Amino acid sequence: MSIVRLCEFLYPLISHIVYLGGTMNIGIFGTGGVARAIAAKLISLGHSVQLGTRNVAETKNRSQKDAMGNPPFNEWLEKNPSVTVGTFAESAAFGELLVNATSGGGSLPALEAAGENNLSGKVLIDISNPLDFSKGFPPSLSVSNTDSLGEQIQRAHPALKVVKAFNTLSNPLMVDPHLVNGGDHTLPICGNDADAKQKVTALLNTFGWKSENILDLGDITNARGTEAFLLLWVRMYGAFKTPMFQFKIVK
Amino acid sequence: MSIVRLCEFLYPLISHIVYLGGTMNIGIFGTGGVARAIAAKLISLGHSVQLGTRNVAETKNRSQKDAMGNPPFNEWLEKNPSVTVGTFAESAAFGELLVNATSGGGSLPALEAAGENNLSGKVLIDISNPLDFSKGFPPSLSVSNTDSLGEQIQRAHPALKVVKAFNTLSNPLMVDPHLVNGGDHTLPICGNDADAKQKVTALLNTFGWKSENILDLGDITNARGTEAFLLLWVRMYGAFKTPMFQFKIVK
Repeated sequence: MSIVRLCEFLYPLISHIVYLGGTMNIGIFGTGGVARAIAAKLISLGHSVQLGTRNVAETKNRSQKDAMGNPPFNEWLEKNPSVTVGTFAESAAFGELLVNATSGGGSLPALEAAGENNLSGKVLIDISNPLDFSKGFPPSLSVSNTDSLGEQIQRAHPALKVVKAFNTLSNPLMVDPHLVNGGDHTLPICGNDADAKQKVTALLNTFGWKSENILDLGDITNARGTEAFLLLWVRMYGAFKTPMFQFKIVK
Repeated sequence: MSIVRLCEFLYPLISHIVYLGGTMNIGIFGTGGVARAIAAKLISLGHSVQLGTRNVAETKNRSQKDAMGNPPFNEWLEKNPSVTVGTFAESAAFGELLVNATSGGGSLPALEAAGENNLSGKVLIDISNPLDFSKGFPPSLSVSNTDSLGEQIQRAHPALKVVKAFNTLSNPLMVDPHLVNGGDHTLPICGNDADAKQKVTALLNTFGWKSENILDLGDITNARGTEAFLLLWVRMYGAFKTPMFQFKIVK
């Protein structure tokens, strides 16, 4: 058996073990509520995390609440000292697995700044939603119906394995599904690469998501469905006055 | 107490009794699967139903399956002999309560044909979805994001009390919610008129919907949310290979 054949044989096995029980270097684009929630969870599970941002010094010194009302970033960073902060390119290079937790409008620029060499062949969990708040609340979507942000990201970076996930619920529930209904509710995911979706599912299992509650809709065009759901989500949020709700598919 | 004051006092009371326990004349626009399911349910509850269509003779003689694969209309009518069929205007005049179960593209023309005099002041349950199948399955929406078909109908007919309901699930579940999860799942509704929503809720209760599972999102602009949900629904339908599913909001 040649070295190449041996590697071909061993890679899926090792990869499986690493994703199921091992720890990884994970690069997260963004420094807002979603990025922080995912980062803290990953750290608690033993992974190493680098957050990516446009201007590292400016981000680290931020002492004001952000636009969404999250506490100042420097306060959060003090409480999470093992999280490192880098440029989008640095965090992309750092990560074996990548997470896009930037705003809708910030996603394509962040990925472009990350650089193709740092993205190629990697799995990206895309949590972003193309929310347009320019006319207030509830927001509309800046891309929808016949296209989606998930598809735009996948088209712009064909060598990236984009898995749309977590964009249908509030960030506390992403990392602790048991906060509502004993963890029994539905998380739709989609993406073109079956192996990437398996890896993401294995990671989500470690967050507390049961495999039977993770609904694989198919390829990345299904992001049109999960992103459009936000138009209903924001209105339910308006009715409930809390983001701590989820949907469970019943049959 | 003048007659006018007496009527003002008695009307809400009588109206409440009629909607809760009495029977009504109900006009349904459309003759497809949704119209038939609602009609059969209403008949079983003792109401009188007239279906509205563009060409009565042509509809009654239809001996082919329709575009959605429903059995020929003449077969269905033979099995439901108490249902009458009229023009859109006739069924609108007939109905104390109206239901729009036409296709997305057929909705505004049907309502226009119904005539303002026959619509004015009445409650319309709008079940329609603006589905565009011109590029195959899954369909996109012909209006979405910053507007909705529910709003278009309300704007075109300001004297009509539009309540968007039932557009988020398959027609067997509309009329028999107990078919999945013991009837425990969520039905979002919206509309500008609080009294109209109460009347619709009372009718839905008689279909088996518990009030606590009917989620009032607010005014008719919330139809942007319930109609956009179809972009996720059609993809879940594709994944499940059955329309017999629903979502339940858990908190």
